[in-house]
Amino acid sequence: MKLFYDKSLTDVPYFKAIGIHSGLKKKKNDLCVIYSEKACVSAATFTTNKVKASPVLLDMEHIKNDKTFAIVVNSGNANACNGEDGYENALAMAKITAECLNINEEEVLVCSTGVIGVPLPMDIVLPGIKEACSKLSYTGGNEAAKAIMTTDTIEKKVAVEFSIGDKKAIISAMAKGSGMIHPNMGTMLSFIATNINIDKNMLSKALKESVEDSYNMISVDGDTSTNDTVIILANGSLENPIIDQENEAYVSFKKALHTLNIEIAKMIAKDGEGATKLIETKVLNAPSLEDAKISSKAVIKSSLVKAAIFGSDPNWGRIICALGYSSANINPNNVDISFSNSKGSVQTCKNGAALEFDKNFAVQILNEPATTITIDLHDGDFSATAWGCDLTYEYVKINGCYTT
Amino acid sequence: MKLFYDKSLTDVPYFKAIGIHSGLKKKKNDLCVIYSEKACVSAATFTTNKVKASPVLLDMEHIKNDKTFAIVVNSGNANACNGEDGYENALAMAKITAECLNINEEEVLVCSTGVIGVPLPMDIVLPGIKEACSKLSYTGGNEAAKAIMTTDTIEKKVAVEFSIGDKKAIISAMAKGSGMIHPNMGTMLSFIATNINIDKNMLSKALKESVEDSYNMISVDGDTSTNDTVIILANGSLENPIIDQENEAYVSFKKALHTLNIEIAKMIAKDGEGATKLIETKVLNAPSLEDAKISSKAVIKSSLVKAAIFGSDPNWGRIICALGYSSANINPNNVDISFSNSKGSVQTCKNGAALEFDKNFAVQILNEPATTITIDLHDGDFSATAWGCDLTYEYVKINGCYTT
Repeated sequence: MKLFYDKSLTDVPYFKAIGIHSGLKKKKNDLCVIYSEKACVSAATFTTNKVKASPVLLDMEHIKNDKTFAIVVNSGNANACNGEDGYENALAMAKITAECLNINEEEVLVCSTGVIGVPLPMDIVLPGIKEACSKLSYTGGNEAAKAIMTTDTIEKKVAVEFSIGDKKAIISAMAKGSGMIHPNMGTMLSFIATNINIDKNMLSKALKESVEDSYNMISVDGDTSTNDTVIILANGSLENPIIDQENEAYVSFKKALHTLNIEIAKMIAKDGEGATKLIETKVLNAPSLEDAKISSKAVIKSSLVKAAIFGSDPNWGRIICALGYSSANINPNNVDISFSNSKGSVQTCKNGAALEFDKNFAVQILNEPATTITIDLHDGDFSATAWGCDLTYEYVKINGCYTT
Repeated sequence: MKLFYDKSLTDVPYFKAIGIHSGLKKKKNDLCVIYSEKACVSAATFTTNKVKASPVLLDMEHIKNDKTFAIVVNSGNANACNGEDGYENALAMAKITAECLNINEEEVLVCSTGVIGVPLPMDIVLPGIKEACSKLSYTGGNEAAKAIMTTDTIEKKVAVEFSIGDKKAIISAMAKGSGMIHPNMGTMLSFIATNINIDKNMLSKALKESVEDSYNMISVDGDTSTNDTVIILANGSLENPIIDQENEAYVSFKKALHTLNIEIAKMIAKDGEGATKLIETKVLNAPSLEDAKISSKAVIKSSLVKAAIFGSDPNWGRIICALGYSSANINPNNVDISFSNSKGSVQTCKNGAALEFDKNFAVQILNEPATTITIDLHDGDFSATAWGCDLTYEYVKINGCYTT
């Protein structure tokens, strides 16, 4: 298995893509279309927020279709909380995309990200989609990745190549992270394309299981968007024997997919709003997987922990405090805590009590752009890892600046 | 019922108090003793954090005693995560206080707030307690209130007078809020004294029920301390017929106590770390009390909502988003949202969709030091109110600054 950071969706055979500027945003590209010339099986996971944007509600229907050819995405407007018109507009985006590509509307998935509660200006979006479809290309993957960015400071894409028998399979992903489009919350979108031949059930199973331990284990500010969506399209052009059970090929695929998703998830966490540092929280030896996940997420979400990391403060008290108030089943007197990265490792807490440690060295570790907080609960066999970022002045600035 | 902001604990008959500088902090007072010459019945609520500081563990035992005479409090060190020595030191604080006041150790409650995981310097604390006990006075209430402050910018105290029959009852409280003592989390401490005659069960019932809807409905940063404690002492000097059931006197007392606790809770929220604004979230017509509480807390805890209020951004999208990802049972299509205070009121969302509203006027409202966010779920008869504060640069500065 090999990772590539220079490849894009259009490095997957038969995939075309493009990103254009339709006018939803002032200058930046704001509309993208992804299209596979070969019919794809598709799977997706959507936000758990009870407030779901209209395109999410539409996709929850269209994803049931046995064929998918295209995804159309706009940034600059979330098409959320727009009532019934919102759904009609999402449907209109699917319809015009289908017309342009000569496919059926239910073979198109739709995503939006941006401002909530503002009607989608269809006089801008529909011509934009026509233009985008006319410009689809085998080399448009990078443009597409740029068009879904909001306040993301870097485009997020990665591909992985692996073998199924003697065939070279590829999975390529692009994503946008928790960027802010004034005046609303950011949205996590991830689009994954692959050439493998797999049935819908197995594709769906692999995606859902991987998302649980990748995208669902990151937190930038604990706020879950109304638009979060992860979609995978598999066009089967590899012509491997169809994967319809948990055989060797499935295991290889799932491993590759999960590696890819974790890379993307970490990119999103590291590029969280205003973030200067990536935080990885590894919880070891928890009494259950649920306890491991809850406690690792509680630490990554704590404003006090996030602010401490920003200040390079080896503040294990805030970490054990977050473990304590989480609903995870932990025994405070068993907890060990340490900070580590390429600079080295320092343990600050053993059996829930302070250890003497070299504070200056701990600060040196925390000054690095990425740090792992390892928490050993000594209370079972389950582990989980969560990813997040520090809490900075810039986060407050991005989210607290407003002028009418 | 009348509120007094100039009265202190020592305005309750037979209560003495004092605050002194023992040396735990550089300059500020850091130790306080509260003492009633008449034996008190006592009740308390403690942090729900599974990581409990040693004084909390001690008080959970001592509070079972039928008599309480004194509370001893130190700031500057939380005496948390200090292993068995921590408990021994908390007990030693109770013992020396008991010696000085000629009472039994189980008649003393102990509180600490400050740095976690650093052994309590008993060579400073024990002489400090002796000095404090020798200086107890009928006018020491204000000094005591100052001695428990950490980064609180104002001392928090309020008293309420009300009638039981023809007798004038008084309840007086002092508290410290979510202030930061480097390098650890803040702690909420509240101490309440009253002259009424009530039995322990009814006092405990009144306190627990009131705390649920006052202190437990505030959030500064969502982090629950290891030391949070609310204690009430009732010395019975009013000589009213003992309150041992839910009679008229109990109802009057509970109403007065709850008014007092809400005042203190709002003071704590308003003086949260770095806060410039008090946010009140009123959730109306929820399907259950639990849903009302969960949704009001989800909004008050959202970093995006808090940052928006800091920026005077009438960002209802972040509010409905927080409602949506909370575990509360809500119907997004029923939600109305408005902002209001002395400047006026503006509704921004009806039935889960945007309303046209005057943004400039909304900003004027949000520029005020206190704003109420009213959320009508139109889905039941239950209501709840939560209090919090905005998320500011200063919060990040207070919690993110560290130098070895």
